[in-house]
Amino acid sequence: MKVTNSLEIPRFSGIRSFMRLPLGDETKTDISLVGVPFDSAVSFRPGTRFGPAALREASLILKPYCSVLDTNIFENLTLADYGDFPTVPGYIEDSLDLIENNLRPFLAKGSIPIAMGGDHLITLPQLRAVHKELGPVALLHFDAHSDTVPEYFGKPYNHGSPFYHALKEGLIIPEKSIQIGIRGPLYDRNILNYPKEKGMRIVMGEELHNRGMDAIIKEAVERIGNTPTFLTFDIDFLDAAYAPGTGTPEVEGFSTHQALYMVRRIAKELNIVAMDLVEVLPDKDNSGITALAGVSVIHAVMAAISYRKQHNLK
Amino acid sequence: MKVTNSLEIPRFSGIRSFMRLPLGDETKTDISLVGVPFDSAVSFRPGTRFGPAALREASLILKPYCSVLDTNIFENLTLADYGDFPTVPGYIEDSLDLIENNLRPFLAKGSIPIAMGGDHLITLPQLRAVHKELGPVALLHFDAHSDTVPEYFGKPYNHGSPFYHALKEGLIIPEKSIQIGIRGPLYDRNILNYPKEKGMRIVMGEELHNRGMDAIIKEAVERIGNTPTFLTFDIDFLDAAYAPGTGTPEVEGFSTHQALYMVRRIAKELNIVAMDLVEVLPDKDNSGITALAGVSVIHAVMAAISYRKQHNLK
Amino acid sequence: MKVTNSLEIPRFSGIRSFMRLPLGDETKTDISLVGVPFDSAVSFRPGTRFGPAALREASLILKPYCSVLDTNIFENLTLADYGDFPTVPGYIEDSLDLIENNLRPFLAKGSIPIAMGGDHLITLPQLRAVHKELGPVALLHFDAHSDTVPEYFGKPYNHGSPFYHALKEGLIIPEKSIQIGIRGPLYDRNILNYPKEKGMRIVMGEELHNRGMDAIIKEAVERIGNTPTFLTFDIDFLDAAYAPGTGTPEVEGFSTHQALYMVRRIAKELNIVAMDLVEVLPDKDNSGITALAGVSVIHAVMAAISYRKQHNLK
Amino acid sequence: MKVTNSLEIPRFSGIRSFMRLPLGDETKTDISLVGVPFDSAVSFRPGTRFGPAALREASLILKPYCSVLDTNIFENLTLADYGDFPTVPGYIEDSLDLIENNLRPFLAKGSIPIAMGGDHLITLPQLRAVHKELGPVALLHFDAHSDTVPEYFGKPYNHGSPFYHALKEGLIIPEKSIQIGIRGPLYDRNILNYPKEKGMRIVMGEELHNRGMDAIIKEAVERIGNTPTFLTFDIDFLDAAYAPGTGTPEVEGFSTHQALYMVRRIAKELNIVAMDLVEVLPDKDNSGITALAGVSVIHAVMAAISYRKQHNLK
Amino acid sequence: MKVTNSLEIPRFSGIRSFMRLPLGDETKTDISLVGVPFDSAVSFRPGTRFGPAALREASLILKPYCSVLDTNIFENLTLADYGDFPTVPGYIEDSLDLIENNLRPFLAKGSIPIAMGGDHLITLPQLRAVHKELGPVALLHFDAHSDTVPEYFGKPYNHGSPFYHALKEGLIIPEKSIQIGIRGPLYDRNILNYPKEKGMRIVMGEELHNRGMDAIIKEAVERIGNTPTFLTFDIDFLDAAYAPGTGTPEVEGFSTHQALYMVRRIAKELNIVAMDLVEVLPDKDNSGITALAGVSVIHAVMAAISYRKQHNLK
Amino acid sequence: MKVTNSLEIPRFSGIRSFMRLPLGDETKTDISLVGVPFDSAVSFRPGTRFGPAALREASLILKPYCSVLDTNIFENLTLADYGDFPTVPGYIEDSLDLIENNLRPFLAKGSIPIAMGGDHLITLPQLRAVHKELGPVALLHFDAHSDTVPEYFGKPYNHGSPFYHALKEGLIIPEKSIQIGIRGPLYDRNILNYPKEKGMRIVMGEELHNRGMDAIIKEAVERIGNTPTFLTFDIDFLDAAYAPGTGTPEVEGFSTHQALYMVRRIAKELNIVAMDLVEVLPDKDNSGITALAGVSVIHAVMAAISYRKQHNLK
Repeated sequence: MKVTNSLEIPRFSGIRSFMRLPLGDETKTDISLVGVPFDSAVSFRPGTRFGPAALREASLILKPYCSVLDTNIFENLTLADYGDFPTVPGYIEDSLDLIENNLRPFLAKGSIPIAMGGDHLITLPQLRAVHKELGPVALLHFDAHSDTVPEYFGKPYNHGSPFYHALKEGLIIPEKSIQIGIRGPLYDRNILNYPKEKGMRIVMGEELHNRGMDAIIKEAVERIGNTPTFLTFDIDFLDAAYAPGTGTPEVEGFSTHQALYMVRRIAKELNIVAMDLVEVLPDKDNSGITALAGVSVIHAVMAAISYRKQHNLK
Repeated sequence: MKVTNSLEIPRFSGIRSFMRLPLGDETKTDISLVGVPFDSAVSFRPGTRFGPAALREASLILKPYCSVLDTNIFENLTLADYGDFPTVPGYIEDSLDLIENNLRPFLAKGSIPIAMGGDHLITLPQLRAVHKELGPVALLHFDAHSDTVPEYFGKPYNHGSPFYHALKEGLIIPEKSIQIGIRGPLYDRNILNYPKEKGMRIVMGEELHNRGMDAIIKEAVERIGNTPTFLTFDIDFLDAAYAPGTGTPEVEGFSTHQALYMVRRIAKELNIVAMDLVEVLPDKDNSGITALAGVSVIHAVMAAISYRKQHNLK
Repeated sequence: MKVTNSLEIPRFSGIRSFMRLPLGDETKTDISLVGVPFDSAVSFRPGTRFGPAALREASLILKPYCSVLDTNIFENLTLADYGDFPTVPGYIEDSLDLIENNLRPFLAKGSIPIAMGGDHLITLPQLRAVHKELGPVALLHFDAHSDTVPEYFGKPYNHGSPFYHALKEGLIIPEKSIQIGIRGPLYDRNILNYPKEKGMRIVMGEELHNRGMDAIIKEAVERIGNTPTFLTFDIDFLDAAYAPGTGTPEVEGFSTHQALYMVRRIAKELNIVAMDLVEVLPDKDNSGITALAGVSVIHAVMAAISYRKQHNLK
Repeated sequence: MKVTNSLEIPRFSGIRSFMRLPLGDETKTDISLVGVPFDSAVSFRPGTRFGPAALREASLILKPYCSVLDTNIFENLTLADYGDFPTVPGYIEDSLDLIENNLRPFLAKGSIPIAMGGDHLITLPQLRAVHKELGPVALLHFDAHSDTVPEYFGKPYNHGSPFYHALKEGLIIPEKSIQIGIRGPLYDRNILNYPKEKGMRIVMGEELHNRGMDAIIKEAVERIGNTPTFLTFDIDFLDAAYAPGTGTPEVEGFSTHQALYMVRRIAKELNIVAMDLVEVLPDKDNSGITALAGVSVIHAVMAAISYRKQHNLK
Repeated sequence: MKVTNSLEIPRFSGIRSFMRLPLGDETKTDISLVGVPFDSAVSFRPGTRFGPAALREASLILKPYCSVLDTNIFENLTLADYGDFPTVPGYIEDSLDLIENNLRPFLAKGSIPIAMGGDHLITLPQLRAVHKELGPVALLHFDAHSDTVPEYFGKPYNHGSPFYHALKEGLIIPEKSIQIGIRGPLYDRNILNYPKEKGMRIVMGEELHNRGMDAIIKEAVERIGNTPTFLTFDIDFLDAAYAPGTGTPEVEGFSTHQALYMVRRIAKELNIVAMDLVEVLPDKDNSGITALAGVSVIHAVMAAISYRKQHNLK
Repeated sequence: MKVTNSLEIPRFSGIRSFMRLPLGDETKTDISLVGVPFDSAVSFRPGTRFGPAALREASLILKPYCSVLDTNIFENLTLADYGDFPTVPGYIEDSLDLIENNLRPFLAKGSIPIAMGGDHLITLPQLRAVHKELGPVALLHFDAHSDTVPEYFGKPYNHGSPFYHALKEGLIIPEKSIQIGIRGPLYDRNILNYPKEKGMRIVMGEELHNRGMDAIIKEAVERIGNTPTFLTFDIDFLDAAYAPGTGTPEVEGFSTHQALYMVRRIAKELNIVAMDLVEVLPDKDNSGITALAGVSVIHAVMAAISYRKQHNLK
């Protein structure tokens, strides 16, 4: 795998691919980066269609070695950037089909796709693809919002509804799934009843603040075990001060240190089969720290996968 | 009509309605301001759903007297702000129906609606409403783009397609209609053939630069005559320097002086039955000059209508 | 109370009132939201006159149910947005009188006003109004600055002086009052002597960092007890990273989690008779997180009041 | 006069004085640059108190030679930057006195002061100072607004009122004065009657657009003749696209080319005794082009004064 | 040549190459787009190293057909984006060599390179490469600055010095060269003597404003004739209102209409052998209009080359 | 020492020197503030040449008394702002010499210089100057990056290499030196071997998070003891949320409270002989919180030095 060395060619040079990785072709890579520039399903502020481009730009300053896990991503894994999936802005159902169909080949050949959103509805077609290729999976979900509202404005599909559908369609295994960091005002007292009744574990932000990270890490790892897992990370899991560039920011959230501390320690124990990082909105990210946080989460998951391969786990 | 006097109460005070006009109720007003916060049909950069709010904010510094036409809007006309129409983000067809149905009552009772977009597709349901209430109309269209592409991404509805549909559905009278300011690179040589074959007059930006404003004013007035007219103004008629806050800005455009000079002189000769101002995108409008330009265009049209009433024209 | 349902009408639609609440009329509501767009008393950076508008915009994404206190604001309380008070920019004394006189009717009929500033001097006329209607009150004050300097530039009124005057005029009961979070460099060693000698409790930021939130919560609740209380929250209580959009930001501050954790737990034990949230400066709040933090504080106080009514406290 | 050479020391280096000129002391200089960081009199958006700092920053890229007038400012004139005048934010009358009293010594010793605002009310105390030292003067006034409203909010002093007071107090000679570029909506038809009745010449923006620059230049020069003249330039004379960074921007304005073309040609014929450049608002001037335009106007006037000295005019 | 169709795949999708053109390989193309992310030679504000990325992003909304010249770029020409040249930030001479050496192969095989800067010093190594491959050339230079200062800070290389060296090294033919638009204050009266004495024609901005575009177009075309020509366009030729995003913006400049009007009409008569577009500085280009103007200039030149091929000129 | 009193003259007034201190002359002051506007050695984003100006602007809101250490800087110390050192943009070696030579006189006369960067390479010439005047020193280094890479792009000098050279040239005593907060992805596993082998103590960010501040404070104080110490603070020690305005921001960092808590407690135990604060990049610091954090660190060190003098330590 030919990678541009940033000690030789300045990192501000060149066509923007993720970490200046080679563009993907037919060859299988361990990890496949793809962009999903879709934001037609947002309930408030649009613009995450420019998320993939912003994440690629932010990824320029990443480097391959993770000192926390003592692992070098480029030594253990093959990676490529496969560009963006086509979508149809303003036509949600068509876009969902395009995303699902474009993702399946990566899963079929055993690559781990890492999708850069886009709004959170893009996780639904990914879960459909994963379900078709690999069967139902565990969901490891970092977010400020549960995204389990059945409908908005009389319509089923919205970035606040993907996990309602995922549960209803049987794409994920509720008793193996966990949502972490949910907080902020809610529409009403009963809004989270459906996922809870289905068996989903919801760790509210307040609980995470009060019990601490280690307790939740332990619970997540034990709950999921070795079930194939889809890791979805909504950038608004982070506090609005750490991730201002998102459509529905929430206060009372978590720092990047807390997020990465948890992601690394949980992910290195799991069998991640697909991942996405969603809801980065560049127009509200003046200084770029939100995109930087986003690629740092991706980096942490890649490092966890690298660590597992390095240590022959799985 | 009770209006807040800015010499008594500072203009930065109070709930944001257009020019701090009273909020509309069942009473008919001569002019009805409405917002249409819809942007699901954009081909590139979204965010004009926040256009109506930005236009209301910018309208705070407007005053009622137009010295160019020597007319006082508040003396000659009754006006109110009726808030925003409901839409369904991500569901174009449903939104089109909502816009059409919400506009019709204003037309039915003889008020002149002024709609604040929103992307340019919102003109289509307005034209449908106008057609149902008043029959086919002349189109007076200021824009950098003809917006007559039949489809995008295999779909009919896009902010680049409203006037293709308007022509096809017979909502406007091509031989009484005119598009002014069209410029910038095109998809191909034949892309404007359809509207031209239908009989639409297209004044390219180059032609306007070369022939000058007075020639085009004369032509527009003569072409339209006393036909009831829908005036649609896409803010990107203005040069990108004058209107940076829009989704597909174009260079080689026109100044606000050129725009208002033309709008006032054409509109005061016509029978305007409805108007919209579209494509203001606040996220790219850091200093607010685009929204200011937008409300200045609205003000010019309101002044033209005031002038006509003052002089018993029509 | 008719409220716009954000699952039916998108939250980016409509005239901007706080949480899209109805505009207030003569009817008494439990809580009365008012804006005070006044910033003539700032010592450094002006612009908080646009604070009320920014707070209303940020309030669009709030929802009525608080899961931490398990209470639904809209079920327990009536609320309305009464718009902004008139002020006279550049004429401080006249503005103070206008604010005082406009606030009194709300207090007179037993509504709890929540004022959105504006700079911190607006608390002084509010305290005068409260004193006239209800007598002296306890002050619960979150801030980075004590705001007890007697004069600036040879003049008495400045946003750094309101609590000097409040103490001197006997508007607040010092032994029932507490200032929390004071920090940053000071003019000199003796600058806080006056409030201390008067009996005010000042919790410096360093003390709060070292002793922790629970100790200060306990102290505040015990100190104030059931005395009628004015809660004033200067957004710069938050660290500059959480509240960049303010005129005199301070580092070494507190997170939104810390702020809301304290506000909820203290406020639900007290008899709040009036509240304000001040010093949000939109021009320095590019991503809007400061305004979001501000409305979250207001939401927390409203939830505490809702909780008390729900549980028949007071 | 020791000046930093930008071919030797990079222009981004050093303490920010205007054009990196020496700081003024007791010595008389031909031109005296002063800042007046006052904005308490604005009717809409404050922040011009940071105008002087922004203008000094923008002045870094100026150079001494004007090729249009073929004159080198540093060769013909002595200049110094005297820092800012003290003011009392929120106390208008006190600030007016401070400005007047601080300006008089410069005039008394025959230096030409160039004041950097600040809002437009600062011209009033300057005119009072000029009147006391030199008697009534001609006013050469570039602006989008006449600023002759008698009162706002029941108070006499506002940045929309300086020339009402100047006329009333007899500070300027109306028949020798001219306002150029007035445009935009007005409060009502009669708002400009007072200055007109007093004998002031008001060149509306529309007239300037229609008659062209040369006609107005000729008229201004002939009208003023050799009367000692105060030149006041409100940055909103420029179109909002050229000067977005101001508190009440106006569309339909003029380019920097038009402004400088006029300023140079008029000023080189006149006896300028004082000048100010007002209403630059850095918070709305993201790219800095407004401040750049402002210092370019100052540069043009300095070049005109240099030209006159070089050619022994006056 | 495979090009992404923006009517099929939304233009916000995909890896950012210029106009989403294919990435270049060994095959020769008529036009070769390259980025030169170098800004170590600026005298004031750095950051143009991010110019190529910003220009690629802005190029997404370009389309292939130019209606003014009635030519379709993609029909007449082969094009590819070859990524960025390596440079060594902080080491000017090494970077100059890298740029020269990387450009030569394109020239050697007869492709027309279009370089996206970067600061203006990058034109020097390009001229060196052109000189080595093709001999001395005519220079067609649009700029606000002549860039012919011999040295800055005691050093020869600076973005204000490239054409001093080009003249001195004999890379360009002065009597066939022309600089258009030079304006703004100068260091001193004699600063332009060197290029003038060498035989360069300098059209000052004032002259262009006064004589008009057609006169200068005629002169440029006649002067250059059929000499192989290097076209260099510094974005600050445009007025600061049209190109705020540059390191040393100048007022009194030209609109995009004026620029493109001239560029198209001159370039279609000439034998352009290489081109660059320099000094776009994204950090000061909040709304992106400067980058848009930049790619529009490139588009105009590509259209001129397409036109010539279409009509078998040259 | 004459200092402007911010209770008399508003802090937004006047020429910008650090804390509005007097400009330095030949007289020795205890502390000498200097700017080093140099950024030619950055590997990614340039612009810190505007750091000194931004830090001076941010310093306006500082006050002299530190309540944490109970010490008044202006009472115990003499201070002055000596402006900026000259540099040669684009010529690294020359600039290093200029910085070294300009710093030595301050050290020679026993003043403690506090340098405002500029990129981190500026610490190298300062260490050279210190070495020549005072011999080798301890290094107390707060940073996200070790900056000990031997070369970039085949060249020795880069803002990622100063401490490689400092170690190699024997400027610092490794066994008395400590780097705190190093984190983020690395180029490879061995990249920190050199400083470790030399004897440098590197406290990784993860270790600081896990062991806590007090443990590291204790270790740093014991390690350094009374060795003369150079304190260098790279603003990216702070988390990207607290310091977005820097060229290579890093997530998982530290708050301003953590930073100042450590800096005060360590610095008051040490013999600081020189200090710098580097890598503030205003173009990415929209709200100014990064510059504010920077001057707060400087203030904390000045307070520690004031505390030591007040208590006759050293």
